[in-house]
Amino acid sequence: MELGLVGLGKMGGNMRQRIRNAGHTVVGFDHNQEISDATDLADLVGKLTATDQPKVVWIMVPVQAIDPVVTELAELLSPGDIVIDGGNSRWTDDTRRAAQLAEKQIKFVDCGVSGGVWGLENGYALMCGGDQETVATVMPIFEALKPEGEFGFVHAGKVGAGHFSKMVHNGIEYGIMQAYAEGYELLEAADVVENVPEAFESWREGTVIRSWLLDLLVNALKDDTHLEKIAGYADDSGEGRWTVEAAIDHAVPVPAIAAALFARFASRQDDSPAMKAIAAMRNQFGGHAVKGADSADPSYATPPVKH
Amino acid sequence: MELGLVGLGKMGGNMRQRIRNAGHTVVGFDHNQEISDATDLADLVGKLTATDQPKVVWIMVPVQAIDPVVTELAELLSPGDIVIDGGNSRWTDDTRRAAQLAEKQIKFVDCGVSGGVWGLENGYALMCGGDQETVATVMPIFEALKPEGEFGFVHAGKVGAGHFSKMVHNGIEYGIMQAYAEGYELLEAADVVENVPEAFESWREGTVIRSWLLDLLVNALKDDTHLEKIAGYADDSGEGRWTVEAAIDHAVPVPAIAAALFARFASRQDDSPAMKAIAAMRNQFGGHAVKGADSADPSYATPPVKH
Amino acid sequence: MELGLVGLGKMGGNMRQRIRNAGHTVVGFDHNQEISDATDLADLVGKLTATDQPKVVWIMVPVQAIDPVVTELAELLSPGDIVIDGGNSRWTDDTRRAAQLAEKQIKFVDCGVSGGVWGLENGYALMCGGDQETVATVMPIFEALKPEGEFGFVHAGKVGAGHFSKMVHNGIEYGIMQAYAEGYELLEAADVVENVPEAFESWREGTVIRSWLLDLLVNALKDDTHLEKIAGYADDSGEGRWTVEAAIDHAVPVPAIAAALFARFASRQDDSPAMKAIAAMRNQFGGHAVKGADSADPSYATPPVKH
Amino acid sequence: MELGLVGLGKMGGNMRQRIRNAGHTVVGFDHNQEISDATDLADLVGKLTATDQPKVVWIMVPVQAIDPVVTELAELLSPGDIVIDGGNSRWTDDTRRAAQLAEKQIKFVDCGVSGGVWGLENGYALMCGGDQETVATVMPIFEALKPEGEFGFVHAGKVGAGHFSKMVHNGIEYGIMQAYAEGYELLEAADVVENVPEAFESWREGTVIRSWLLDLLVNALKDDTHLEKIAGYADDSGEGRWTVEAAIDHAVPVPAIAAALFARFASRQDDSPAMKAIAAMRNQFGGHAVKGADSADPSYATPPVKH
Repeated sequence: MELGLVGLGKMGGNMRQRIRNAGHTVVGFDHNQEISDATDLADLVGKLTATDQPKVVWIMVPVQAIDPVVTELAELLSPGDIVIDGGNSRWTDDTRRAAQLAEKQIKFVDCGVSGGVWGLENGYALMCGGDQETVATVMPIFEALKPEGEFGFVHAGKVGAGHFSKMVHNGIEYGIMQAYAEGYELLEAADVVENVPEAFESWREGTVIRSWLLDLLVNALKDDTHLEKIAGYADDSGEGRWTVEAAIDHAVPVPAIAAALFARFASRQDDSPAMKAIAAMRNQFGGHAVKGADSADPSYATPPVKH
Repeated sequence: MELGLVGLGKMGGNMRQRIRNAGHTVVGFDHNQEISDATDLADLVGKLTATDQPKVVWIMVPVQAIDPVVTELAELLSPGDIVIDGGNSRWTDDTRRAAQLAEKQIKFVDCGVSGGVWGLENGYALMCGGDQETVATVMPIFEALKPEGEFGFVHAGKVGAGHFSKMVHNGIEYGIMQAYAEGYELLEAADVVENVPEAFESWREGTVIRSWLLDLLVNALKDDTHLEKIAGYADDSGEGRWTVEAAIDHAVPVPAIAAALFARFASRQDDSPAMKAIAAMRNQFGGHAVKGADSADPSYATPPVKH
Repeated sequence: MELGLVGLGKMGGNMRQRIRNAGHTVVGFDHNQEISDATDLADLVGKLTATDQPKVVWIMVPVQAIDPVVTELAELLSPGDIVIDGGNSRWTDDTRRAAQLAEKQIKFVDCGVSGGVWGLENGYALMCGGDQETVATVMPIFEALKPEGEFGFVHAGKVGAGHFSKMVHNGIEYGIMQAYAEGYELLEAADVVENVPEAFESWREGTVIRSWLLDLLVNALKDDTHLEKIAGYADDSGEGRWTVEAAIDHAVPVPAIAAALFARFASRQDDSPAMKAIAAMRNQFGGHAVKGADSADPSYATPPVKH
Repeated sequence: MELGLVGLGKMGGNMRQRIRNAGHTVVGFDHNQEISDATDLADLVGKLTATDQPKVVWIMVPVQAIDPVVTELAELLSPGDIVIDGGNSRWTDDTRRAAQLAEKQIKFVDCGVSGGVWGLENGYALMCGGDQETVATVMPIFEALKPEGEFGFVHAGKVGAGHFSKMVHNGIEYGIMQAYAEGYELLEAADVVENVPEAFESWREGTVIRSWLLDLLVNALKDDTHLEKIAGYADDSGEGRWTVEAAIDHAVPVPAIAAALFARFASRQDDSPAMKAIAAMRNQFGGHAVKGADSADPSYATPPVKH
């Protein structure tokens, strides 16, 4: 079938290729004209000419750019056409966008996409939300993108359920990565296991903790045995935060996922204000020596004046 | 080669089978005489008659039974013979046992074994510690037990390194399981994703969180969609505790693994003493109603008397 | 001065008394006419007759009832009058309500109030937000409510800053209570300290952890040495959740406060879905026996069928 | 009465003064001869000449120095004499030392001491363990040291119970400090409350979270409004670790105290190995840019090679 694809970055570019490899027609648009098949969104919509299907446009742009694209597509598309949001949207935004498009009788499907740089080759796991009929219409595109095996696709429920599912997937991912990371640090610190990368590699078969993330960590340790080339600094892309917030909304305890999120926050701090407060209190009650922010200032090393 | 195997339970029994399948000779001993090949340890040692190798005895018994077996084997074996402890020993016990056996010039190898009920078919992941020569001598047995692929075995270092590696493996396992469990609870609570088992199943391919534990959780959800047949009660077998303790020894933060451990502790409490204290304090300062342990006693529902 | 006070419950009723004790005039309204000084809000506003001040109305109602009261007061009050929200509002709601009232040129002050059932006697700690002039106008009321010492009142900033400050106060409170509660449970479990209430009582002087919450816990333990009359069940009133959410918004790690919040969530569960998932996975890989939800059903105690 | 006191550092020196202020005789020993009353331990014991009491020696030295002092005192003292260990000993060491001294019929009391630099003026909170008779004998010393009010002393149980009680006290202290510290960081980060120190100061009266630690934090913020002179680096002296370990021994969940401990560990790391592992995995699956440890090395900023 025929698909318009907005956003040809790291994800969108590879997705265009994989969908084309499956024999479908893709008209892609990107602000980078060198890789774009259309000059603008109007041009993209104009180039969707198949007569046996509604126009279908998949949005694959950074999260802050989604609303403008939806708004423009609402003007360009016709009743019965379909918009798919494959970006990292918060699931609560899906309902709003679906309502906006529904005013023009345009259908909406939200689709969480997992797979990263490996998706072109291995396929992308897809979690989508929307009504049965609309999802059925775009199913050939989902089939093209998903992995070849029997898994990797779920129609999770109504609009929003796709991104909700993807959000929880990412929350779980935070927890799993944190677990491996803590184990890695302990092995490095304890100095009992002589070759830490070998231990990780051995776990790839027969163990309870074998997984794709383990495979990736083993890859990384092959390139850089003690991870000396990389800083202990981890960004977060939103889904971890939303997972904890959704858990709070539903009174669900998520201590491991929250621990993973907080560890990332801490990793980005040069100095911890909270730990400054701890050091200050210890100094106040115990006269415990503290490290001055400016180490030349020894004033905190003496018991504090009592007020 | 020839091996004595002490303990033919859920693990040891299957291991005997897998080693025999590989063409080796195994003399097994178990207190359950119906499945035992020897009447006692002395009989087992007597039946190890190969002349081209030292006697090798693998201990696969519950952790509290290991020391008595080691002590008895120290009397029965001869200089140059080898004892392998494949049980769930704390790694700090390995050095002590190695020293006890070394007094009789008996060699010692510790070996963490992963694989559970699936090991007979898929192979067991092995993490061993000991000197190069001794490990090389028993390598044919390790080869028989390990999975067929290129991974699943590591000689992690000196005596103790095998169980240390297995301990960290299990600590990581706690964290990973907790991550999936938290995601499961959130999906169940939020009621956005219509079919939670289908969402989990879809994640088996193409996602970042695909793993063997995910496969197992999908299996469990097939049998019992909402896990209604199973109580939220989780034992712990020691390695999780030891991992947190080792992390404390080395000042390594392990918040996710600790969260997983504490969640298991809490799962086994009928009522939480800590939460009783929280409820008591809230009642004291706010006159917040509390649930009486005996719900017929409303005395706590009124503001407390001030002392 | 003269004050209208809407809501005469556990908090509002005592506050009316304390303000009157300071010599001010309070017209209170409550749906419970037995304790109310006015028949409805219009009657309350009509009874505010002082000519040397704007009309000032303090709202002290449950959080879900605040918006209707604000909306009605917006109709009843005149330009220059003042509304104070002393309820447990989320700070983000303050700006919206201030804007709603500003359309009628009515001023708004938000005020977090701490003190619980002890406030009548000891005074209420107040954290308020609003412009300087408006806060100055109502200062006599704040003076009447606050404790007699030099502390207990802060003008924290613009509208919203009062409730933000109160929110963080409560978040801290969650963490402190959790710390005492964990210590209590450990003392009870370890059975090393012979008289746990005596140990807590001894900490009331000379220690680093002396505090008012400690005093309250000691009170509670006097009535009920092992807290046998009280269930380990703790509600949460919102501020703990909002604190964690605000922390997430600002990428601030709050592991202890989040732990306290999650412990309350868990305390209210009959059975933990997450722990069901843990038990199910353990059963799948290890054939570990699990507790059936219906203990008569032993089906999970055997290794699972492999799919 | 008469007391020998070994160790005249920050704690011991002030304690000697406070005991003397109460009218008792103290013979102090310290390696620093300028402040010492005796040349060595033998000299100290020789100078204890009261005939109406057993010799009583209080040890107040760093934890690694306790065993040598106990061993030497075991030689110098006589049956019926008493040794008190007031140091930061792990409670499990008390039983061993009591047994060592019991061989010579010397009595032993363990005593946790809280109060820090403020103890000389305010008194020291004492938590002791030992038999009734021995504790009664040294009670005049405890009376001299403890605060003047009705609290601040507990005979917690048998030998070890004093240090166990002190350990839990310190564990609670970790959690409380962490709660204030998290609240402080959130207030600083959110920039809603205009004057953070003022907000903390206002909490000193009328609030639920008023405490001595709050008073100390307010003191610290007076000297250094944004804690700019102090680094976010916090040591730990052992009791926090032991509290978590004791909790693990008894299967008690202590998530807030553990969070506080882990935050201190993390505060002392220049870079987090765990977070390196997280960053490496993110780079592997998503091609997410990472910060190079050497920022001039951009090699990680591109998608990794697939192995």
